[in-house]
Formats: sequence, structure tokens, C-alpha cells
Amino acid sequence: MRGTVYLVGAGPGAPDLLTLKAARLLAEADIVFYDALVNPAIVEMARGAKKVAVGKRCGRHSSAQRFINKRLVDASVNHRRVVRLKGGDPMLFGRAQEEIDALAAAGVPFEVVPGITSALSAAADLGVSLTRRGVARSASFVTPRSGEGESPGHWIQAVLATDTSAIYMGLGEAASISAALIDAGKSARTPVVIVENASLPNSRRVAGTLGDLPDMAAQGFDGPALILLGEVYRELISLESMHHERVSA
Amino acid sequence: MRGTVYLVGAGPGAPDLLTLKAARLLAEADIVFYDALVNPAIVEMARGAKKVAVGKRCGRHSSAQRFINKRLVDASVNHRRVVRLKGGDPMLFGRAQEEIDALAAAGVPFEVVPGITSALSAAADLGVSLTRRGVARSASFVTPRSGEGESPGHWIQAVLATDTSAIYMGLGEAASISAALIDAGKSARTPVVIVENASLPNSRRVAGTLGDLPDMAAQGFDGPALILLGEVYRELISLESMHHERVSA
Repeated sequence: MRGTVYLVGAGPGAPDLLTLKAARLLAEADIVFYDALVNPAIVEMARGAKKVAVGKRCGRHSSAQRFINKRLVDASVNHRRVVRLKGGDPMLFGRAQEEIDALAAAGVPFEVVPGITSALSAAADLGVSLTRRGVARSASFVTPRSGEGESPGHWIQAVLATDTSAIYMGLGEAASISAALIDAGKSARTPVVIVENASLPNSRRVAGTLGDLPDMAAQGFDGPALILLGEVYRELISLESMHHERVSA
Repeated sequence: MRGTVYLVGAGPGAPDLLTLKAARLLAEADIVFYDALVNPAIVEMARGAKKVAVGKRCGRHSSAQRFINKRLVDASVNHRRVVRLKGGDPMLFGRAQEEIDALAAAGVPFEVVPGITSALSAAADLGVSLTRRGVARSASFVTPRSGEGESPGHWIQAVLATDTSAIYMGLGEAASISAALIDAGKSARTPVVIVENASLPNSRRVAGTLGDLPDMAAQGFDGPALILLGEVYRELISLESMHHERVSA
């Protein structure tokens, strides 16, 4: 008898933003492989499971990925319910495809359980919708990180062509993101928000403009952070300026 | 004492894809206003609440929207916990902003609870990641529906500039979507999948190419459906052709 591998989205961080299905699968799991960035309180929900930390979300090499693939396939031999827990949603910058392909090739039954991706959680925290009638009818989800053989500036066109953009895994490259978008014709006055630790009690946000992004990014973020960009955020800048004026007054 | 209004994402349809937080808020709600498209099994989770159906997702007029805004504000006077339940995620084609603005203007405390948007649920059902190393590093979420004063072809550039696209509320306009994208230079052989009733037991999918989209859309879909488009879906077409060959053989 062969076990099933569940690729489960852990959501943005808050344990109560797990889906009911994800919570049930964790409670029933025999073994859980989890990304280093997943909130420990969520991993603990797998009360009866063996818990194995694997890889890191950023800078993981393909050899490490092949090792994870092998461990998932191997685990299905001795365990009925194997959970592979990934931050956010597995199918959006979650690198799920390599694991899915390895499981399919080995004939291991698998199922993907979606999770709340951080852009939606950040939008909820901010109270600003990604789409908005008359202002934003399209949203893009991009990352400036490129893999082998990929054109490094590929994400720029996506941001230029959509009303609202969520830039994942971009904070460390904020200066080059700002320069590249302005060079490509995006206004330096485009509203931008950085949201760190979306959904968590220590969530933090800084609003400003694309021209200010390098300075904004230098304000000591160390949790997972997302860059949001588009006209829908203009009001946040005014609120922030008003707040600053009030504080200085 | 004033109640709080929770704008809650009901997710794609399956009750177990609600978040833990959404399920708790429904169980505790005094009154729930729900969109016509939300699965009745989810509405029933609000066991002790008065349940009020409001509007429709498509073709709702702005007068109807103003009436919903007013009902939410009024409900907060007499109820401690008011839930506004929306299909998918409130902040992505959920028209949450008008309700948020009305609540903020009236001084009503509110909170947004994210939900699984149908593109992520469809990706999980298909086992095909929206992003994939070396193939797709950007995703767009668009709708061909345009509001007053909006450029009707606005979504086309977003689809052209991103690797994978999810087209919401587009199935009824499949013929014009196909023609517009091909006219704009997208290959007629671009892989396309229609996913109906993502996450539900009666979920259905049809894979093909952008050129075939009008014929694909004519195959009697009546549930909520999403159009997914991009190279990541090429394998599904081959599988579907193989299946047809096997069935005809």
C-alpha cells in the first residue's frame, strides 16, 4: 500500500488563515516536510506527525530540490499521509511543479491543497483591493528572481502592462527594481507599499512612491515582505504623509 | 455600541477550502449577507445567523451596490458581528472596495478576511503550477468586463505581457477573447484550459488552444468557470489528445 502526498499551502503566516482542509490534513498527517519560512505554530498543528524541515525558500539549489523530491517519494512508501507544507500557495512561486512531476513520475498519488497567497493577505491587511472598478482591472504577480536560461528583465513588461502588481521575493533588489521600472517608463511617482509579515501581529507597512522604493526598503525589514505597486495605493501615501505631518506638528 | 463588519472570502466553492478564520466568523455571525454564487453549504455554516442574499456577481448595477453598502452600515447598528460573504477572495474581482469605502465613510469598524481565489483552486485541481521555473515567472489575473469609462481592451496587454493568465468572468465572451488575443499577436496555438466549478466534485475541465477557445466554451458550461492560458498547460493538451485517441481507438 502506498501513501498519498499532499502539497499543502500554509498561507501567509497566521495559523487561522489555513484552510479547513489543510488543518485537517496536518492533524491527520504521519509525516510533514515543511519549508523553513513556515510559521512554527502551523507546523505544530501536525500534532502526531514526524516533522522534517527542508530547504529554504530563497537560494535553494536544484540538487537540494532533487533531494526533497526523493524524500517525498520515499516517505510515501512507509507513511499513509505525507504532507508537504509550503508557505503561501504551492502553485504561485511555490516551486510545486518539480515535486509534482517527481511524484507523478514515481507513480505516487498526490493532491494539491491551495493556500492564501501573501498578496491577497496583504490586500486584506491594507483594506485596499487589488482590483477596483474604474482604477484597476488587472493584477500581475511577478518575481524579479530568474532561473537558469531565463531572461532577467522578463517581469518588467508584466508590471508595465497591469494596473496593480505584487512583486514577490523582491525586497533585497529594491534599488534595481525601482531603477528598471523607471527606465522602462513607469512613473517614479507610482504608489508603492511594502508589506512585511502580512497577516501576523507584527505586520508592518511602508507606503511611498516607486522613486522612494530603495529608501523604503532600507528601513530594516527582516520578515517575508511583498512589494505592491499601482494607483490603488495612492490614498495610502496621502494618509502616511498626513500621519507624518501630524507627528512632526 | 457598534458592530464590526467582516468582509470574508468564501473561496472557490468547496466548504473545506474556507479559512479557519472564515469558518469561525460564520459560526459566530449574527447576520450574513451573501452573494448569490456562494455555495449554500457554506452559507449554512452560519448556523445562528440571519441570512440575507444580496445581488449577483455579474451584471449588478451601481444602485444595487449602493443598497448593499447601506444595508451593511445599517446592520452594524443592531448586530455585533456582521459577515459579508463573497465568492473567492474579496480583494481580487470581489468588488470589496466600494463596500470598504462606504463602511470607512460611515465610521463602521471592518476587517477583510482573504479567501482562496479560483485561479489558485483551479491550479491545484489541474496539478499545474501557475509559475514554473524556466517556463513561467509571471502570472496575470484579468477580466474582459469593463466598467464605465474604462478602456475595453485593457486586459489584452496584461495577457500578452505575462507567462500565465487567469481570465475571470470571461467564458461568455470566449469568441471575442480568442479573436482579440490572436489579433494582438498571441499565437492561436497557445494552450488554454477552461476550468468549471473548481474545487467541487462536479468540476470539469477542457484543454485546447486559443484558436479552439470558442468551440471549447460552447460545450455547455453553466457553473462558474475560469479560462487559464499559457505554455504551462501544453502538457494537458497532449494528455487530452492522447485520451481522445485512446477512446476512439
